[in-house]
Amino acid sequence: MKKILAAALIATAALLAACGNLSFNSSAAGKGSGSSASKYTTTGTTDASMYEGVIKDGRYQTSSARGLQLTQNQQDGNAFNIKSMEAGLQALSQKQFATSKYLFEEGQLLTTATTRKWLAHKSAKDAEGLNPKSNKSTDANKRVPTYLQTILEQDYMTQAGAKMTLGGVAIALGMNEYDYYQKVKYGATYTTHITDAAMTAQGKRMAQEVVTRVRRMKGVANDTPILIGLYKLAARDSLVGGTYFDYVLSPSGDTVSDWKPVNQQNEVLPTVDNKKPINQTVSDDFANFQSNVENFFPTLAGVTAQAHYESNQLTGLNVTINTQFYGLTEIQSFTQYVGSMASKYLPSGVKVQITVQSTQGIQAFLSRSRGAKDFTTHVFDSY
Amino acid sequence: MKKILAAALIATAALLAACGNLSFNSSAAGKGSGSSASKYTTTGTTDASMYEGVIKDGRYQTSSARGLQLTQNQQDGNAFNIKSMEAGLQALSQKQFATSKYLFEEGQLLTTATTRKWLAHKSAKDAEGLNPKSNKSTDANKRVPTYLQTILEQDYMTQAGAKMTLGGVAIALGMNEYDYYQKVKYGATYTTHITDAAMTAQGKRMAQEVVTRVRRMKGVANDTPILIGLYKLAARDSLVGGTYFDYVLSPSGDTVSDWKPVNQQNEVLPTVDNKKPINQTVSDDFANFQSNVENFFPTLAGVTAQAHYESNQLTGLNVTINTQFYGLTEIQSFTQYVGSMASKYLPSGVKVQITVQSTQGIQAFLSRSRGAKDFTTHVFDSY
Repeated sequence: MKKILAAALIATAALLAACGNLSFNSSAAGKGSGSSASKYTTTGTTDASMYEGVIKDGRYQTSSARGLQLTQNQQDGNAFNIKSMEAGLQALSQKQFATSKYLFEEGQLLTTATTRKWLAHKSAKDAEGLNPKSNKSTDANKRVPTYLQTILEQDYMTQAGAKMTLGGVAIALGMNEYDYYQKVKYGATYTTHITDAAMTAQGKRMAQEVVTRVRRMKGVANDTPILIGLYKLAARDSLVGGTYFDYVLSPSGDTVSDWKPVNQQNEVLPTVDNKKPINQTVSDDFANFQSNVENFFPTLAGVTAQAHYESNQLTGLNVTINTQFYGLTEIQSFTQYVGSMASKYLPSGVKVQITVQSTQGIQAFLSRSRGAKDFTTHVFDSY
Repeated sequence: MKKILAAALIATAALLAACGNLSFNSSAAGKGSGSSASKYTTTGTTDASMYEGVIKDGRYQTSSARGLQLTQNQQDGNAFNIKSMEAGLQALSQKQFATSKYLFEEGQLLTTATTRKWLAHKSAKDAEGLNPKSNKSTDANKRVPTYLQTILEQDYMTQAGAKMTLGGVAIALGMNEYDYYQKVKYGATYTTHITDAAMTAQGKRMAQEVVTRVRRMKGVANDTPILIGLYKLAARDSLVGGTYFDYVLSPSGDTVSDWKPVNQQNEVLPTVDNKKPINQTVSDDFANFQSNVENFFPTLAGVTAQAHYESNQLTGLNVTINTQFYGLTEIQSFTQYVGSMASKYLPSGVKVQITVQSTQGIQAFLSRSRGAKDFTTHVFDSY
């Protein structure tokens, strides 16, 4: 624990009504709960590269639009998109909002009702819909697809004494590469493929609209930086999440001009169907690691990985090893061995997370942070 | 990785037949596989307090009696016993066999067939049965219960050049406090309770028998130290495993005399049914931690812990936090907060492992080693 700021939590504080209201400074928030001014504390942090989170009256401020986002993604059947989209937006935000200066709060500006309206296709009923007006066609190539599938907001706060101020807003627009739809309710699922060009054009148009709308919201100043990231959702049968492809920072007013490309790629290793890997060396290194690990036990272990590339450079590997049930000492030896093989075969300098799973859940885990040489390991034990 | 000794693994080595033969030195083992002398390597280790494991011809040497042990324990319905028994036997062994000098190998002396015979009740058919002769009674208080439920063996090896020698044997006798039995096949389950006095007397008698038998096995020298630990299995509905209560070291021959008591206790926190906790201060500390953690999210998280005591001192806490599904940033903030609360409320200096679970599996984990002040944390991410 480098810093433990959390203190004096009022565990018995009255339950705050779940609301979409802004709650960015203590005096405004205090009114809502009908009690004295709200008490802000923070989560504390163990890692300087992580944001501290905001706690209000002893409770974490969850995002009111969260449920909606999850529903939308579960419908996709790809939970990887959620985590990847969240982590990616934080990574983009770190360039603008330093972890040492800003605190993290789940998005408080966009309510469930607002998000639902924005995600709709524009119509007389849904004037705020960001997706273009539907043309009633059900033909995969003629219909107007749902370009925007999900919206994610993150707030970056600054603290001065007891006062918490909104220092920046980051919003991700989750764009469909594959739009899944039914022609009749509960009918078969059809797919419209959306080209990168169309996705980008739509995303940039929507980003302008979003900045204009958010800028007018209560609590957002004319010069509050608003970051918009465009995220391409992975297909629903993908074993890895999507990637960001463009982002922009609106420093003030309705300005949305300085678009910057983001070059990210994800893949699952080993590749299937003779698909060419993004990087042959990385793929070969992983194959060596895999075959050594799979030989350790008489019965096979399944080894797969998510590989993440930024600007064509491997920046992270998440390895999952599925084993049968083994005893504790077997898992201990296996974990040490996996660590040896990972040091020997996996690309050096890259962030690596390795989990050893059985049907009983996680058994062990190994990790190496970016640039580090050594793996830390943990075998989950039990009394 | 402090040491990476693993090298030159022969991944294509012929599959060794699963066998109960001894394989303690390379020349003897070489014969069995019909190939040239076996190649021994080790797993490498990340932690000086852990044993390195033995790898033969690129494969880990699993114990042939393992399956039996697992089956017996699964029948009990308490998987905690398995891990606890294994970890406990290693802990007892560390006093005799230093991790710096000895390598770890899963038990190779006791085959499945041998173990099955030893676990039986003595009879004309099972002359080797360690449990006393049955009296055919099915009355819970009159029948002869199964005192010995399971046997676990661990081997401690020394290496000199290419030669691997058995340096010590550790055997745990898993004793029933509750013996579950059926009066008719597939019938209702009845229970015979076994007193500590009877368990100890039976365990010590069996230990003498086991030492005498193991001493005569091939590969065991007259002065190979044999450690026997007596383990009291937890009841099958227990949420924590059992404990060791006595152990002995036979330095040579059939000597089994210097019994040493082991004072271990396990409990689950919070205690239920107004049960008095082992240590009120620990229980209160945990309750404070628990109530703070449970208040963090609007929807409750369930918090429980396994507490382990040695000689009436708390030596370890395994905390499990069950949450609903939350997003990555929520879990990040929660993890930092849990770390802050754990540092603040949980007993200091004690080994702590905290896992944050959802129905999707593990989300985050925090740990602090014995005597350490800081928690290391890890949030499981995904690309």
